[in-house]
Amino acid sequence: MKLLVVGSVAFDAIETPFGKTDKILGGAATYITLASSIVGVESGIVSVVGGDFPQSDLDMLSSRGINIEGIEIVEDGKTFFWSGKYHNDLNSRDTLITEVNVLEHFDPKIPESMQDAEILVLGNLHPGVQMCVLERMTTRPKLVILDTMNFWMNTAWDLLMAIIAKTDVITINDEEARQISGEYSLVKAAKKIHAMGPEFVIIKKGEHGALLFHEGKIFAMPALPLEEVFDPTGAGDTFAGGFASYLAKKEDFSFETMKSALIVGSSLASFAVEKFGTQRLQEISEEEMKTRLQNFKDLTTFEVKV
Amino acid sequence: MKLLVVGSVAFDAIETPFGKTDKILGGAATYITLASSIVGVESGIVSVVGGDFPQSDLDMLSSRGINIEGIEIVEDGKTFFWSGKYHNDLNSRDTLITEVNVLEHFDPKIPESMQDAEILVLGNLHPGVQMCVLERMTTRPKLVILDTMNFWMNTAWDLLMAIIAKTDVITINDEEARQISGEYSLVKAAKKIHAMGPEFVIIKKGEHGALLFHEGKIFAMPALPLEEVFDPTGAGDTFAGGFASYLAKKEDFSFETMKSALIVGSSLASFAVEKFGTQRLQEISEEEMKTRLQNFKDLTTFEVKV
Repeated sequence: MKLLVVGSVAFDAIETPFGKTDKILGGAATYITLASSIVGVESGIVSVVGGDFPQSDLDMLSSRGINIEGIEIVEDGKTFFWSGKYHNDLNSRDTLITEVNVLEHFDPKIPESMQDAEILVLGNLHPGVQMCVLERMTTRPKLVILDTMNFWMNTAWDLLMAIIAKTDVITINDEEARQISGEYSLVKAAKKIHAMGPEFVIIKKGEHGALLFHEGKIFAMPALPLEEVFDPTGAGDTFAGGFASYLAKKEDFSFETMKSALIVGSSLASFAVEKFGTQRLQEISEEEMKTRLQNFKDLTTFEVKV
Repeated sequence: MKLLVVGSVAFDAIETPFGKTDKILGGAATYITLASSIVGVESGIVSVVGGDFPQSDLDMLSSRGINIEGIEIVEDGKTFFWSGKYHNDLNSRDTLITEVNVLEHFDPKIPESMQDAEILVLGNLHPGVQMCVLERMTTRPKLVILDTMNFWMNTAWDLLMAIIAKTDVITINDEEARQISGEYSLVKAAKKIHAMGPEFVIIKKGEHGALLFHEGKIFAMPALPLEEVFDPTGAGDTFAGGFASYLAKKEDFSFETMKSALIVGSSLASFAVEKFGTQRLQEISEEEMKTRLQNFKDLTTFEVKV
């Protein structure tokens, strides 16, 4: 199956306790589709960049088999830019700069070559843009996966509810799940979010892993405990990308396959944080990936009988 | 194998968003040994209560096969009393009253009938008292399990280090693990705590489960996602009790058995929080326990191949 991803393709400037970068390649769609290329699934990006966006980055994406026909280049515009500084615990960060730039007037165009994508990933963007992309698909994809954040709850509630109603799988972090549902218990929060539309609810808990809810069933996935997190930027997007790509590869959307897909997503995210930006994702070998998946097995497998 | 438990036997008065209790039976040793009785393991308590402690509570413990010879009754003293109020999220609480009472001059005496206990559980008490109990065992138990908290780090550091050095398994929560090690990463924190003595380090993460570290291996256990937590009091002690009791039952201290033991502990803790105090623990049926263990299996099992 093919994956269509709408989301930012951007510049990030990152500071962590381990060092800092100038403007480097970032953006949700970048991380998501890099994950697809590792899983070995065809994907395409719908996004917009400015004239300042390097051809070499576009070439890198293309060389990995990512369809970039849907990346509009606004020659006299500037690419979305985010700059942030992580605190010592790497669990929180301050945003230093957000320049929305060409993303402000983003009018997503879906290339003909991607109209047959079976899975649509709506990266964390304005819910109106997410809706627009869904409506511009000539046939509804078999699976719509939505990522969102508290910013849109505070600024575009009605549109957010409208797109959530049309979503099959939502990924949301624990604090946001509590905010959107008004429930502290994540089990209750997931039920309320189910009622908003999505059949599958994924609640991300950062270093504590994630929970998947579906028809009263729950899967709890721990994150791989890491000795060192070098740069958390893009971990959530890589997770979503690995998840969606595994579903595309298996061509199956059952609860069982979703569980496996979460593990793949989390494994990829555990690589992403080992170096700045997308660097580590561009280097992962098949062997490393297999080892990491086995690490997850070892981490969670147990037998018990009383 | 037999389990000897030193810890408080106490009164708690609890307020949660769901209601409040007068003084009811509480205390670490109570929860730990109740867990043993459910797992079906012989256990005994070393503790002290006042003349105000009801015979009916002692009878209840005895009737469940718990050896209470080591519970000293100070007739003219008062039983340790704690009163607390949980916040709406049940993840934090205010202590309203702590009356140490007879526990202040606690001079632990190990009954002859419990000198052959193979496992010693040092419940969360002053590290000097914990050390004293260990020294009063005529032969060192095969396994020493220690629970502690930040209070002792702040007030009795040297004694705490001394008892930790003699411990095989330590249970500690994530914030305390960070405090005692000075490391934010729990993987690094566990390494430093290993170096203090314990071969096995269990880091408790509340609603996010727990991590077990041993010789470079890690096991991550999620907590059962609960729709409602009625009263979290005693959950940590029940967890430790279920863990220790399963090891006693299996007569094995391997990493694999410890993993299973964590699941048993967590299952019991998930019952404990369903009602006030020890009430729910006194009612669990074998069938319910089996179902709960299966819930954990379902919650965590996955298959994945890329």
